[in-house]
Amino acid sequence: MGANRLSGRIRPAPGLDVPRRLDAGRRQFLRRGALLSGSLATGAALAADGKSATLPPAEPPWSRSLGAPILAHPYGAPARYEASVVRRQSPGLTRTAQSSVAFTPLQSLFGIITPSGVHFERHHAGVPEIAPDQHRLIVHGLVREPRIYTMDDLVRFPSVSRIHFIECGANTGMEWANAAVPTVQYTHGMIGCSEWTGVPLAVLLEEAGYDVKRARYVLAEGADGASLTRTIPLEMALADVLVVYGQNGEMLRPEQGYPLRLLVPGVQGVSSVKWLRRLEVGDQPWNTREESLHYVDLLPGGMHRQYTWIQEAKSVITTPSGGQVLLDRGYHEIRGLAWSGRGKVTRVDVSTDGGRNWRAATLQSPVLDKALTRFRLDWNWDGGAAFLQSRVIDETGYVQPSIRALREVRGTRSIYHNNAIQTWRVDPAGDVSNVQLG
Amino acid sequence: MGANRLSGRIRPAPGLDVPRRLDAGRRQFLRRGALLSGSLATGAALAADGKSATLPPAEPPWSRSLGAPILAHPYGAPARYEASVVRRQSPGLTRTAQSSVAFTPLQSLFGIITPSGVHFERHHAGVPEIAPDQHRLIVHGLVREPRIYTMDDLVRFPSVSRIHFIECGANTGMEWANAAVPTVQYTHGMIGCSEWTGVPLAVLLEEAGYDVKRARYVLAEGADGASLTRTIPLEMALADVLVVYGQNGEMLRPEQGYPLRLLVPGVQGVSSVKWLRRLEVGDQPWNTREESLHYVDLLPGGMHRQYTWIQEAKSVITTPSGGQVLLDRGYHEIRGLAWSGRGKVTRVDVSTDGGRNWRAATLQSPVLDKALTRFRLDWNWDGGAAFLQSRVIDETGYVQPSIRALREVRGTRSIYHNNAIQTWRVDPAGDVSNVQLG
Repeated sequence: MGANRLSGRIRPAPGLDVPRRLDAGRRQFLRRGALLSGSLATGAALAADGKSATLPPAEPPWSRSLGAPILAHPYGAPARYEASVVRRQSPGLTRTAQSSVAFTPLQSLFGIITPSGVHFERHHAGVPEIAPDQHRLIVHGLVREPRIYTMDDLVRFPSVSRIHFIECGANTGMEWANAAVPTVQYTHGMIGCSEWTGVPLAVLLEEAGYDVKRARYVLAEGADGASLTRTIPLEMALADVLVVYGQNGEMLRPEQGYPLRLLVPGVQGVSSVKWLRRLEVGDQPWNTREESLHYVDLLPGGMHRQYTWIQEAKSVITTPSGGQVLLDRGYHEIRGLAWSGRGKVTRVDVSTDGGRNWRAATLQSPVLDKALTRFRLDWNWDGGAAFLQSRVIDETGYVQPSIRALREVRGTRSIYHNNAIQTWRVDPAGDVSNVQLG
Repeated sequence: MGANRLSGRIRPAPGLDVPRRLDAGRRQFLRRGALLSGSLATGAALAADGKSATLPPAEPPWSRSLGAPILAHPYGAPARYEASVVRRQSPGLTRTAQSSVAFTPLQSLFGIITPSGVHFERHHAGVPEIAPDQHRLIVHGLVREPRIYTMDDLVRFPSVSRIHFIECGANTGMEWANAAVPTVQYTHGMIGCSEWTGVPLAVLLEEAGYDVKRARYVLAEGADGASLTRTIPLEMALADVLVVYGQNGEMLRPEQGYPLRLLVPGVQGVSSVKWLRRLEVGDQPWNTREESLHYVDLLPGGMHRQYTWIQEAKSVITTPSGGQVLLDRGYHEIRGLAWSGRGKVTRVDVSTDGGRNWRAATLQSPVLDKALTRFRLDWNWDGGAAFLQSRVIDETGYVQPSIRALREVRGTRSIYHNNAIQTWRVDPAGDVSNVQLG
C-alpha cells in the first residue's frame, strides 16, 4: 500500500512522500460506469458462471513456491512495500538533529494504537542509550524516607496498564499563523496512543511517605543530557500518573524513554518526562527552564500563559487529508481521530461543506479515557469542491473551537495548544490540501 | 531487562534463554532485613537529609552527552538490551522450517496488546512475499454477482477496528501427555492479541449478493504455497468475521498474512486464513485437508471430533512462570492472561496452593469481547513450596477445567484444544517449573 507502486496513477506532490490510500480501482469504476448512489458497487464482476474463474488472471509466484522459513525474523518488521510509513522530520523546523521532532504518519494508520516504531519523537538532547541495570529512580524532597529504586524494584511493584495518548503541546503549532503545513503527518503528527504499563506514581509517593501537609508539587527529571525537568501538581500525580516501563506490550523503546518514563495522561507531552531518574516532592512549582522560557503560551499584548497542562479536546480527519488525491467520485469513508485531555470523547461531527452542515460520525468502541478515539462517516463525493472538517465534543461538554475563535483569544504568536478545527479542501481534480476558512 | 545482565544473579536454565523479571533487589532486601509482612518495603533509603543525595553514585555517561539524533531510526526498534524478547521455535517440533511454529514470549510482555514483532507465527508453506498491487480477493460461489477486489478496493470499504486474540488450536498441545514444556512461551505462546482493522465479511457477502436460501458456509483460501483452506459457518461469517489488512495501527506484517487475512474471532487460529485470496459461498462444509486430516481432536476409543471451532475459556499465569526464579521472599505481583472464544472474561481466580484455596484476581480494564484480559493478584511468598494456578470463568458461566477433568473426556492423544488449568511449581530455592498435579 506504499506510495511507490501508485506513482503512475497519482500526481506526485513535490518534496513529499505521502502514502495514498484513496485510490480504489479507477479503471474498474470507469468500466462499470457511474457509481450507484449510496451503494458500494466496487469490484469487478467475474464471468457469469463464477466458479470457472476462481483465480486471478495469472497464478502469482508466491502461490507456487515455499515462502520464508519460520524465524527468518525472530523480531518482525513491516513488509518492504510499507517502507513509506515512517516517522518524518519537518525540514528546517529545528537547528539540531538532537533537539528536534519526528512526526507520526497518521495518514497511513488504522485504529487507535500507534505502532511503537512510528510513534512521534521529541527530544532535547537526543536519545540516550541507557543500560537498564545501571539506571536508578530517586524519590526525595518532602518525604519521610527518600528512596532509590532499581528497574528490578520498579517492575516488581503492583502494576497497571492503560491506553492513553501523548500529544506534544506544540502539535499543530504551525497552524497558528497560517495553513502552511501540507499533510496531517506534519499538522497533527506529534501524537501517539499506546497501551502503557507501569507503577502508579501514587504508590511510589506513598512508599516514600510524602508530607501530606506540605507537599503540593512533584518535580520529574530526565537522565538524558538535557536533564529535562517539569513540575506536576500533586493532585494530578496522585490521580492517574504512571511511572512507565512498558509500551504496547513490550519494554519502552529507546526514543520513548527506555527504560523508564513518566506518563501524565491528558497533559502536554513534555510533562511525561522520558528517561526518568528523579522525582522530588515540594511545596511550590519549580519554574524550571522548560516551564518558564519554553512551553508557555504567548498571548496578545505581550502576556503569556504558564503551566497550561491540559491538552483540550481536538480531532482531525486523517482520510482524506492533505497531500492525498481522490481518484474517483462516489463512496469514500471519512476517517479520523479525536481525543480529549479531560476524559472521554462523547461525539464527533463531520462537515463536508466547511462547517455549514454537520453529521454525527460513528465512534469506534472502546471509547477510552484520555485515549485516541477513531471516528468514521460515509461520504459520497459528487466531484465538486468540498471542505472537510471534524469537531469533537468531550464528556465535559467542551466543543472543539474554530481557528478564528481561538485566534480571537490567543492571537497568532503562540506555538502551543492549538486544538482548532482542521479544514481539508478537496478540489474538483481530487487533490486534498490544507486550508483555513476565513 | 533482558536475561543477559542478570546472569550473575540467577541460575541459568540449560538450553533456555528466558528473560527473568522476578529479581528485585536481593542485596537491598538483605541490607534492609526481612520484609514487613503485607508492605512494599522495596528500595534503599537515602541519606536522611535526602536532598544532599539526589543522584546515583556516579553520573552515568548518558547524562553528560548528546544522544542519538532524531530519525536515527525512522522506523524504530526495541533497545538492544531487550534482544532476548523474541519469538522462539520449539526445537524438533516440526520437520521443516516452513511448516512450523514460533512462539510469543508471554513471560516478558505487559498488558493485552501483543507487539506485532513477537506475535506467534504458524505457517504451512513459509511466509510468502506478496506484492499488494498484484493481490486479489475473489468472492464467488452461491452469489448473485461474483467479485474480484484489489487491495485498494478493500481499503476503501467501510472499516472497523477491533481488539481480539488469535490462538492456535494446538496451543498448549504438548501438555495433553505430560508437563514436558519448560516455559510459558512454549506452553501457551501460540497466542497473540492485536487491534485488527478491516472490512466486515458481512459487507462483502452482501455486496456479492449471497444466496440467502441456499448459502450455509464460506470457504476461505490462502494465496501461499499451501493454499490453506478452511470452512466457516455462514452464521459466524455474518456475525463478527473481518477481512483484515491492519494490525496494531499499521498494515499486517508479512508473517501475519500481508496484505490480507481473515479474522474469525474466538475461533482456532487456522480459520483466520492468512494471505487471503478467495472466499467461496456454499451449502455444505468442504471437508478439506486442513479440516479432516489435521485440526481434528482425537478422542479415546478411536473416535475424533471435527470442526471444533471455538477456543474455550483459558488462562495462564505469566509471572511467575516456568524457568523464572524468585530471588526473594515477600511481595510478588502474580500476573497473567485470560481469554474466552465465547465472549468476555468475567472472573479469574488464583491459587498458590495447587487449587485448595482461591482468591479473585483484579481484571485490568477494558475487558473486551474475545480479547486477552490481564489479571493481577498480590502475593507474599513465604519461601516454601507453592503451586500457582489460575482459573477463568467467562460470561457464559463456563469454568476452565483441570487437566484431569479434561483427560477424562478427551484422553491424552489429542493435540488441539487443551484449555486446562496450568500449574507452576515454586520450589523453596525460588525455581519455577511446569508440573501437573495428580
